[in-house]
Amino acid sequence: MPRLDDAAIARALEELAGWEREGDALVREFRLKNFREAMAFVNEVAEVAEELRHHPDIAIRYNRVRLALTTHDAGGVTERDLELARRIDALVRQAR
Amino acid sequence: MPRLDDAAIARALEELAGWEREGDALVREFRLKNFREAMAFVNEVAEVAEELRHHPDIAIRYNRVRLALTTHDAGGVTERDLELARRIDALVRQAR
Repeated sequence: MPRLDDAAIARALEELAGWEREGDALVREFRLKNFREAMAFVNEVAEVAEELRHHPDIAIRYNRVRLALTTHDAGGVTERDLELARRIDALVRQAR
Repeated sequence: MPRLDDAAIARALEELAGWEREGDALVREFRLKNFREAMAFVNEVAEVAEELRHHPDIAIRYNRVRLALTTHDAGGVTERDLELARRIDALVRQAR
């Protein structure tokens, strides 16, 4: 799975509202209603991650969840990260 | 709930193996078997947090879970953080 170049990442981000590039990762912060809702969201993300066998870095601070996607083996952002970002966005559209 | 002073925090840490002070917080990193086990652990921690109405900052990176405990209202570490740390350690002793 090859690392995407800067132009490819920039193009992909046009379709991924809310996501930003931060070095070798794509990051997005989600604000939920409270801690319980934040945990519910993280558990949904975790199910998708297990299905795709690709796991985001997750930071939870009460009602805020920050996800960072990168492909460590490739040393940057790959199509696997874009797929995971799209699946996470689909969760958000379904539920909220 | 008053902020604990440096000496009180240092004394408390003698009883809290694995926890360290990092600025205004107590932090500990846990290594689990894999992402699924890490999520299971985080969910147990979340239940305790809801029960105590005191929520750690949680960072998950595949099988590693980093917890940071602080009492924002007090601007530092309080007895609430020590109680949460003890309850988290009890979870770890039970399960692993």
